[in-house]
Amino acid sequence: MEATRWLGIERPFGLFLGMARPSGSDAGVTGPRVRAAAERLFAKFGYAAVSMRQIAADVGIGAGALYHYTPDKQTLLSRLMRDHLEELLDAWDAVDPGGDTVARLEAFARFHIRFHLDRPDAVFIAYMELRSLEPGSFAAVETLRRRYEAVPEGILRDGVAAGRMQVGDVKLGAMALIAMLTGVNTWYRDGGRLDRTAVEEIYANMARGMVGVG
Amino acid sequence: MEATRWLGIERPFGLFLGMARPSGSDAGVTGPRVRAAAERLFAKFGYAAVSMRQIAADVGIGAGALYHYTPDKQTLLSRLMRDHLEELLDAWDAVDPGGDTVARLEAFARFHIRFHLDRPDAVFIAYMELRSLEPGSFAAVETLRRRYEAVPEGILRDGVAAGRMQVGDVKLGAMALIAMLTGVNTWYRDGGRLDRTAVEEIYANMARGMVGVG
Repeated sequence: MEATRWLGIERPFGLFLGMARPSGSDAGVTGPRVRAAAERLFAKFGYAAVSMRQIAADVGIGAGALYHYTPDKQTLLSRLMRDHLEELLDAWDAVDPGGDTVARLEAFARFHIRFHLDRPDAVFIAYMELRSLEPGSFAAVETLRRRYEAVPEGILRDGVAAGRMQVGDVKLGAMALIAMLTGVNTWYRDGGRLDRTAVEEIYANMARGMVGVG
Repeated sequence: MEATRWLGIERPFGLFLGMARPSGSDAGVTGPRVRAAAERLFAKFGYAAVSMRQIAADVGIGAGALYHYTPDKQTLLSRLMRDHLEELLDAWDAVDPGGDTVARLEAFARFHIRFHLDRPDAVFIAYMELRSLEPGSFAAVETLRRRYEAVPEGILRDGVAAGRMQVGDVKLGAMALIAMLTGVNTWYRDGGRLDRTAVEEIYANMARGMVGVG
């Protein structure tokens, strides 16, 4: 997806805005480092506490050079959050088994845990920094987030229609499922008592129970 | 509980540290306002972005006067987080019905949702600002958090022992339950499609299903 390649190798963000392209191959290397630095610093200190100067210093470029990659801090945050959600949607599309609703529910549970455990900083920012988005960016992020919430909602709706699931309210069921699965990020550590596969298995079973699969 | 009365009417925080007590009745009025301002500002901008000066300005006192109420910003954060968890533990003790494990599970689900919906800023800070705690404060907060996690864990363990519940792993079950219930804070708004009682009812049912109650 084009939009997810911002600051990427093919199309550094500055090009969208017609800004001067940094010289040579530098654009493809520095862009992703700007993105990674912003993500790490926002997650560590919070968006409001991080300055463009600090991001530039972390990358090892001058504050002025940073503006070749992003017009401002708000754009940086908004892009990080939108890209996170777009990657999430694309990644689900790639693994969605379709068909049987219970199989889809289990696949969704395993997928959601895996995707989120691989991206702790992006997940943290996605939840925490909604407060820092300006109205236009907020609306764009909310649209993507609702699109993702519609995935488990659709699975539960189909499951109920097929007589495979019992759910008090499909919207609440979807929200409960997402919250339960995302919660793994707050406690899971590699090398702990249970590995990822074991955790996914246990959560997939809890997800089944939650929606009344016998 | 004494510790939850910091900055409160009986015992403004400064007294613990032997600092001068603000004159007259001012202590009892201003202390809670300092606490409330810090909570609101931390939740809105993040701990790292908020200065003591900003908190003082919000309360309408001088920056110097603020130090009558708290020795520093870290103490303010640590106290907010510990008090939140101590109030949570006390509040559960007050409503825990004891006895039947399934009844306790349902009571826990309703209680957790209600308590957290009433305190959105405190909940947000409790999850987000663990990153901002210095090691000593972090350990104290973690101890309290684990004590709360032990509540649903104990209910599930008893439920399994009594043959009323089926749980793949009681620790993961407890974490999943807490995450699912806390998640209500991310979407619930008073005046929406479902009122709190309806939401509590639906979540209590999902909690039963999650732990295999038939």
